[in-house]
Amino acid sequence: MSLIYFLDLVGTFVFAISGSLAASEKKFDIFGALFVASVTAVGGGTVRDAILGSTPVFWTMDTNYLLVITGAVACTVLFKKIVTRLRTTLFLFDTMGLGVFTFIGVEKASLMGISPAICVIMGTFTAVLGGVIRDTLCNEVPLIFREEIYATACIVGGIIFVLLSYLGLADNITTWASVFSVISIRILAIKYHITLPKMK
Amino acid sequence: MSLIYFLDLVGTFVFAISGSLAASEKKFDIFGALFVASVTAVGGGTVRDAILGSTPVFWTMDTNYLLVITGAVACTVLFKKIVTRLRTTLFLFDTMGLGVFTFIGVEKASLMGISPAICVIMGTFTAVLGGVIRDTLCNEVPLIFREEIYATACIVGGIIFVLLSYLGLADNITTWASVFSVISIRILAIKYHITLPKMK
Amino acid sequence: MSLIYFLDLVGTFVFAISGSLAASEKKFDIFGALFVASVTAVGGGTVRDAILGSTPVFWTMDTNYLLVITGAVACTVLFKKIVTRLRTTLFLFDTMGLGVFTFIGVEKASLMGISPAICVIMGTFTAVLGGVIRDTLCNEVPLIFREEIYATACIVGGIIFVLLSYLGLADNITTWASVFSVISIRILAIKYHITLPKMK
Repeated sequence: MSLIYFLDLVGTFVFAISGSLAASEKKFDIFGALFVASVTAVGGGTVRDAILGSTPVFWTMDTNYLLVITGAVACTVLFKKIVTRLRTTLFLFDTMGLGVFTFIGVEKASLMGISPAICVIMGTFTAVLGGVIRDTLCNEVPLIFREEIYATACIVGGIIFVLLSYLGLADNITTWASVFSVISIRILAIKYHITLPKMK
Repeated sequence: MSLIYFLDLVGTFVFAISGSLAASEKKFDIFGALFVASVTAVGGGTVRDAILGSTPVFWTMDTNYLLVITGAVACTVLFKKIVTRLRTTLFLFDTMGLGVFTFIGVEKASLMGISPAICVIMGTFTAVLGGVIRDTLCNEVPLIFREEIYATACIVGGIIFVLLSYLGLADNITTWASVFSVISIRILAIKYHITLPKMK
Repeated sequence: MSLIYFLDLVGTFVFAISGSLAASEKKFDIFGALFVASVTAVGGGTVRDAILGSTPVFWTMDTNYLLVITGAVACTVLFKKIVTRLRTTLFLFDTMGLGVFTFIGVEKASLMGISPAICVIMGTFTAVLGGVIRDTLCNEVPLIFREEIYATACIVGGIIFVLLSYLGLADNITTWASVFSVISIRILAIKYHITLPKMK
């Protein structure tokens, strides 16, 4: 198992926990929680694969995603108190997931010969669209349209990926530079309360 | 015309009526009703086909679905009183549709060589996602995330399908066992007010 | 560059402005505006391509769409006052976009050998689904389910396309007849306050 695949599953787990917690707040039942957790965790990659025509989409070919999501919902149900107390740890893993998902999306599109600007969008979609669909299903305006630097970190990480690839750097460097740039931008933005300008 | 195909069209009709009634409550116009009815009736199968890459999706290759949906909207407009009075009958047909849609989805994925757990999900998606999109378009939190045993019946019916297929039973038995298990679980759950535990 | 392609980009620009203005009203940030603008402009064609299996979807293969959308968001940010003062001009271009998008969708499906009734739906989806997704993301009930003749104009324009194609008229005539029928119906409906009957 490659490190990126392992981190992908960790990211899936943490995104699924965020979906379960959203389902809790809305008093959904267990099925609702499973559905919202799945959408949060693999919704972005699903839209990416549908747009690129990479079908059957990734999670239908690898049941580990389903297992990890089910495990995340079970943890939220069984250890609700611990999970909510771990918010800072969860934030760090969520940010790690954001970086890894961005990389996976931008690399997948890139390997298909898609042009760089669109690859950046595919990376960003992979990382953020699950949360957008989660919020829409919960009848909320998507959080990331209004708050914090989130998608922007993915866009920058994606741009770093396509730039370094273009320069012909080793795959390893390109991978981790893009993952860590997403993570650093997100953490710095939270720490220094940096936000995007709002529309007026 | 096979019996399953006939029941599929009957299910499409009844799901489309449920969509038209939702559009009525929201005071949509005729186009809005046609759109919501279509989404309710074929939205689940559309998402399933997009995820599996089975495109062009099924209803673009068979105009009977469009005809049946248009007929359902016309019936709702012309015979609104009768339709609303027939709630119990509609419930029974809706439940039948739930069973047939589940079977169709799980069988389609199964024939594509998708792994059993994902086939169950594809069956459930076929049966329930139309209603989820209908509720989201009507700006409501999807009903099935909070109320009653609905998707759960589909999951059990899907599991029965993959188990019986695995045991090598005749196609007929597998088909009807899965359809009737969905129907029975749904009816029993309604009768005895059985619900899933809620998230806290 | 063909005239239709030029008008397609103009339509994309105007639809993206309508998305940016919706994002403004909801006080989204710049990323939210870019996302909603993109969905409004290319969401309909994206769903069409996903349903037809024409992937990677069109805008991933031609970065002009992305450029035009980014330009539209930039204009909305920089010249907000001018943009809002130009409502009548925007309405005319929006209506032109509606006609061109309808034509593009119905022609694309038609070239794939899809049956005429479904081609009409694909034309209508191309023109109106972007707005439906925009409204859903903004947590509003889609406007076109309740107000004005909008999708209906696309349906009629699509029908005119398939009829004239069937009669074997020159491509040019078929194209412009369908585009201008959408535009005329929409303008006449607005001028004479014609609406569809509501569901009761």
